[in-house]
Amino acid sequence: MESIVKAAEKAQEHGIDLSKLPQNMNMTTESITANVLAMNANCPDERMKFIFQSLVTHLHDFVRETSLTSEEWMTAINFLTETGKMCTDIRQEFILLSDTLGVSTLVDSINNAKPPGATEPSVLGPFFTEDAHDVANGESIASEGKGDYMYVEGRVLNMEGQPIANAVLDTWETDGHGHYDTQVSQLLIFRAIRKMIGLLGAETDDGSYAYRAVVPVSYPIPSDGTVGKMVTKLGRHVFRPAHLHIQVQAPGYEKLTTSLYFKGDPYLTSDAVFGVKTSLIMDPEIVTDVSLSKARGFKDAKPHAYLKRDFILVTPEQGAEARRVLADRARVAI
Amino acid sequence: MESIVKAAEKAQEHGIDLSKLPQNMNMTTESITANVLAMNANCPDERMKFIFQSLVTHLHDFVRETSLTSEEWMTAINFLTETGKMCTDIRQEFILLSDTLGVSTLVDSINNAKPPGATEPSVLGPFFTEDAHDVANGESIASEGKGDYMYVEGRVLNMEGQPIANAVLDTWETDGHGHYDTQVSQLLIFRAIRKMIGLLGAETDDGSYAYRAVVPVSYPIPSDGTVGKMVTKLGRHVFRPAHLHIQVQAPGYEKLTTSLYFKGDPYLTSDAVFGVKTSLIMDPEIVTDVSLSKARGFKDAKPHAYLKRDFILVTPEQGAEARRVLADRARVAI
Repeated sequence: MESIVKAAEKAQEHGIDLSKLPQNMNMTTESITANVLAMNANCPDERMKFIFQSLVTHLHDFVRETSLTSEEWMTAINFLTETGKMCTDIRQEFILLSDTLGVSTLVDSINNAKPPGATEPSVLGPFFTEDAHDVANGESIASEGKGDYMYVEGRVLNMEGQPIANAVLDTWETDGHGHYDTQVSQLLIFRAIRKMIGLLGAETDDGSYAYRAVVPVSYPIPSDGTVGKMVTKLGRHVFRPAHLHIQVQAPGYEKLTTSLYFKGDPYLTSDAVFGVKTSLIMDPEIVTDVSLSKARGFKDAKPHAYLKRDFILVTPEQGAEARRVLADRARVAI
Repeated sequence: MESIVKAAEKAQEHGIDLSKLPQNMNMTTESITANVLAMNANCPDERMKFIFQSLVTHLHDFVRETSLTSEEWMTAINFLTETGKMCTDIRQEFILLSDTLGVSTLVDSINNAKPPGATEPSVLGPFFTEDAHDVANGESIASEGKGDYMYVEGRVLNMEGQPIANAVLDTWETDGHGHYDTQVSQLLIFRAIRKMIGLLGAETDDGSYAYRAVVPVSYPIPSDGTVGKMVTKLGRHVFRPAHLHIQVQAPGYEKLTTSLYFKGDPYLTSDAVFGVKTSLIMDPEIVTDVSLSKARGFKDAKPHAYLKRDFILVTPEQGAEARRVLADRARVAI
């Protein structure tokens, strides 16, 4: 038929090299994966090709292992579509999906792997904002009266135990009602308490920091969307254990994004977004000597929780070495 | 701290049985998958649990195998978000994504597996519409003059070779310019030629059907969206080989959704959506006896392509048996 000759001519006009295409045309349950891999084999970006070959293999294995029905497939298509529709400038439902399936923490663990002894990372979460107010060392990050008092102090150190000068510590948390301040102006349910501790080294020689805060509380992830419904159908709750977010930066060191958790929190072992690491769980002292509360700058003579924690940063070289070790271990595991 | 006791009380108020939650709290690269599986283990829907355990395992293995970077993860999040935003009532970009990664064909092959001898299925595609016009047996499904003439005939048979009465044959295809008619009113680039062949058995005793059509041509999948960009970046073209869609239904038999392809088409081995099966490739006769063109009802005395094809339907029992065999084979392969 002449139209077939025309089609081949048109393919050449479109710049398609027909000789490079795979030769198999029988798309059966068994052969389709090899065929898709063959189709992607001409990808000029080696990294993209590697990622897609792994993605396609796992996607197909998933479908085969579950004998996914056409109805279940359509449910998945609709779920992904609705999840995309829910995303706005201030709400990222796909990140929440990644969080609740443990993918965000896994990506974070791989990309921010640290050597033993360094402070472990934890997920950044959606409540970080760049435009925080500066707060001087020793001052308060929290509006007073929105929770139980908490005093946090410690030092920023390198792997050799030496203080790091000129570190900047970013910290944010919920108030005593489980709200972040950043979210009020964005019409969501959270208010955040978040401030930046200024250049530590400019004020202290020993890398020490201190600030007044409140005891953060556990709170639910946004549960009115597709992901919340999924989590509930999975028989899971939607709560995160209470935590204090901390990010530390210093010239010559890798940025550390982590969180501190609290011993005894009922959600420690079932964090809806899988952020908890054992080394990040704190057991704060309850300071009942209210004169110390006054001395540390709290307005009222009430007891306060006291959290003492050093943060150990790594150099880019130390971080790269830790990730190399992790990658080697993964290769052995495969 | 009192707030921890309060949190446990609140958990009970939320109906959360803390004793059922997993006990591990160290989310490392190695332990996170087991932790997510443990969290999903309380899912009351056994099928949903099975699907999610497989999904999570494969997702995590994918991330570990590729050592996915945080930037690549963010690219994926943005890709999924944009893909969701592109979906409308008349455009389903996630189905296109599934199509171009071979997932749709795989799901179709599993769910519509047929025993040897039955006509194999092929993907439904996005251009099917329920509100087609009825066309009598022997008549034309195509507006005249929009492509080269093609005459299609054959019989609808069961696995024992007997004609099936009262079958309804649904058929749709591009015109000679690669356009489907359904899409014009929906403001996309395709027009479709699609009509329904009426109750065959009402007119013939031998399950035979016949209709006038045009020779369909290869055409590009929608390539202006996220999926089109992905396919192009993968070094692939966006074309489907020419094909004639056919769906056959008859009381007491499973609905067959398939397509016929054409020998010599340059895209047969590189279908952008992986629909081609060897058994569905036709080699039409070119009829140069123009008196036969007139006799078959074509307006002009021009040559036409002649396609002769029987469709072999299976009973629900025969289909179920074929899927059981396939599932057994998959289990052995695992």
